[in-house]
Amino acid sequence: MRTQVAIVGAGPAGLLLGQLLEQHGIDTVILERRSQDYVLSRIRAGVLEQGSVDLLDKAGVGTRMHGEGLVHDGVEFCFDGDKYRFNFRELIGRTVMVYGQTEVTRDLMHAREASGAKTIYEAEDVSLHAFDGDHPKVRYVKDGVEHDISCDFIAGCDGYHGISRASVPEEALRTFERVYPFGWLGVLVDRPPVADELIYAHHARGFALCSMRSPTRSRYYVQVPANEAIDSWSDDRFWDELRRRVDPETADNLVTGPSIEKSIAPLRSFVAEPLRFGRLFLAGDAAHIVPPTGAKGLNLALNDVGCLAESFTEFYRDKSSAGIDHYSERVLKRVWKAERFSWWMTSILHTFPDTDTFGRRIQRAEFDYLVGSKAAQCALAENYTGLPV
Amino acid sequence: MRTQVAIVGAGPAGLLLGQLLEQHGIDTVILERRSQDYVLSRIRAGVLEQGSVDLLDKAGVGTRMHGEGLVHDGVEFCFDGDKYRFNFRELIGRTVMVYGQTEVTRDLMHAREASGAKTIYEAEDVSLHAFDGDHPKVRYVKDGVEHDISCDFIAGCDGYHGISRASVPEEALRTFERVYPFGWLGVLVDRPPVADELIYAHHARGFALCSMRSPTRSRYYVQVPANEAIDSWSDDRFWDELRRRVDPETADNLVTGPSIEKSIAPLRSFVAEPLRFGRLFLAGDAAHIVPPTGAKGLNLALNDVGCLAESFTEFYRDKSSAGIDHYSERVLKRVWKAERFSWWMTSILHTFPDTDTFGRRIQRAEFDYLVGSKAAQCALAENYTGLPV
Repeated sequence: MRTQVAIVGAGPAGLLLGQLLEQHGIDTVILERRSQDYVLSRIRAGVLEQGSVDLLDKAGVGTRMHGEGLVHDGVEFCFDGDKYRFNFRELIGRTVMVYGQTEVTRDLMHAREASGAKTIYEAEDVSLHAFDGDHPKVRYVKDGVEHDISCDFIAGCDGYHGISRASVPEEALRTFERVYPFGWLGVLVDRPPVADELIYAHHARGFALCSMRSPTRSRYYVQVPANEAIDSWSDDRFWDELRRRVDPETADNLVTGPSIEKSIAPLRSFVAEPLRFGRLFLAGDAAHIVPPTGAKGLNLALNDVGCLAESFTEFYRDKSSAGIDHYSERVLKRVWKAERFSWWMTSILHTFPDTDTFGRRIQRAEFDYLVGSKAAQCALAENYTGLPV
Repeated sequence: MRTQVAIVGAGPAGLLLGQLLEQHGIDTVILERRSQDYVLSRIRAGVLEQGSVDLLDKAGVGTRMHGEGLVHDGVEFCFDGDKYRFNFRELIGRTVMVYGQTEVTRDLMHAREASGAKTIYEAEDVSLHAFDGDHPKVRYVKDGVEHDISCDFIAGCDGYHGISRASVPEEALRTFERVYPFGWLGVLVDRPPVADELIYAHHARGFALCSMRSPTRSRYYVQVPANEAIDSWSDDRFWDELRRRVDPETADNLVTGPSIEKSIAPLRSFVAEPLRFGRLFLAGDAAHIVPPTGAKGLNLALNDVGCLAESFTEFYRDKSSAGIDHYSERVLKRVWKAERFSWWMTSILHTFPDTDTFGRRIQRAEFDYLVGSKAAQCALAENYTGLPV
């Protein structure tokens, strides 16, 4: 088989890249280790920056998002019970869109099916070859039969645990990592959200987040120690703990119900540099991870592939390699700013086992400063709604 | 002897408090453990916030400051050789005044002499008594003779190592502290400063600061490990190290000379709460210490006593204890914001022995974000020039 761009991974990054390239007549094949149903069953983030919304519109997959997504003008912080709302629209004229990653993925899958472009699910033993030369190859096994794809470029959109980054020679890669000593215990429930907007809560017992996927489906989180056993968290225990960490009004208004999904996600910051190795390009979680505080992960991935699609289009249409030559540097600048913001939001909102009383007061001072400073609020707003590309 | 307010410490805080109270006809006695010459020989900070300038004007001691002080519209950050100027005047319409703490102290001493108010230098064995009741006393020894001062209030302006905070029962005090694993090696030199404004430099070898006291006297600093031996730093070694940490242009323009003072100052964040214990009030370094990055120490002290002077004046003139009752809470709110800012500036500009490569990149991302964001620059500007009282 032969294609122009072989894309590894059929998550939102790989699918959006495929869609943007197909729009420009660039041929792609997407290889995905899992089944289509498995990909759609993954519960992930749900807050889209304005730039992500624009990109999905550009890819022609924005119709359902605009119909079903919830535009949020701001968020609330609740610090030791004191609540403050940051109104992004008033502060900087920008907003965010709440629309589950699963829905973004579903819309992109439909668009890909409609385009007739090839996606190979349950592709086993994917391996990348000769991307340091002009004729890279991707090999995989499907139904027991080995296949080769010859291509011009490989796009590694297969996440943190994927084969793409792992295929890069160790000495060519620099990695930067911070592992946080806690995780997020998340519960999905078919009940209306407790508030119209997200509530990020800091409490001496730990962080909590009141979030949602739709007007009838809510997503709540509480910070738990790393390596916490999920079996020790009954639904009742979860709701009790959540109520303790938010303000009394929120606790009273909380509508609980049986969890339809419950899981613990570790928190990690990770960046791999560079993002290009000959004809292999990394994008999204394959190259960088942010802790979920601030909801930057999906947005970074979409921005990466938006930039990568431009670069490939320039290559084929304009015969210019400027885009692909600058892809890594261009994307990493924005990645590091998002890493900084995600680290900062994580740092002020969580409790850290090693933090001394001075550090706790600095967290509180950060909140008090935010509440009192328009400049600090604008800085929060521009990061949360997405820095310029 | 009897007075209304006994002030412990003849540094800028104690002297300004005395001056502001004398202006309102409130009788004060200042006790100082050291000689007047010793107090004037201490080399300290030199950047005054707008609010500090206003306060010194209000106290009637601003004439020489306005004549000899240098108004700075901004500062430069130099990050791994990349320089960026933050123009506070353009960003938020505020500036700072460079005028040495020694000069502030000298002006206040002259004003106190002119007012005829009593200052007792070389007061030994100062001790505070009965401040939990209505009739506090301060005892001291002068020329071998013990004296008692009866007073209504005691103001502890005697610094971190002074007797005032040490006189408070341990169980009444909460303290918060962060000790940084480095100090500032400072050199004073009678040479023109290398630049018109301060240059805060971050470099892999450590922090450096190019500062000044006047158009002919410069003050330079380099970060050194805690417990560094000052004997190992010849002038030549100091200048060589400073040049390595700044951008090439600054290194070239540096005019060096023999140091007229050379010392190492440790970096510490410290807050004691509350600031009132019956009729004893703490102000300035007696209650809180900031690392020198951002030059908040003297400014916080002046703000404290400005607030304390208002409180005492309300008590005597308006027969209202509202001011003294809220002094601690009111001042601490601003103190913690300055602690946050000083900690933040220290954190992004220094190298930390334990920082991993991720942390180093976050420092760089912080600089890159500042350079690219008007909101972040305004936040820096409002903190550096002084948050509202």
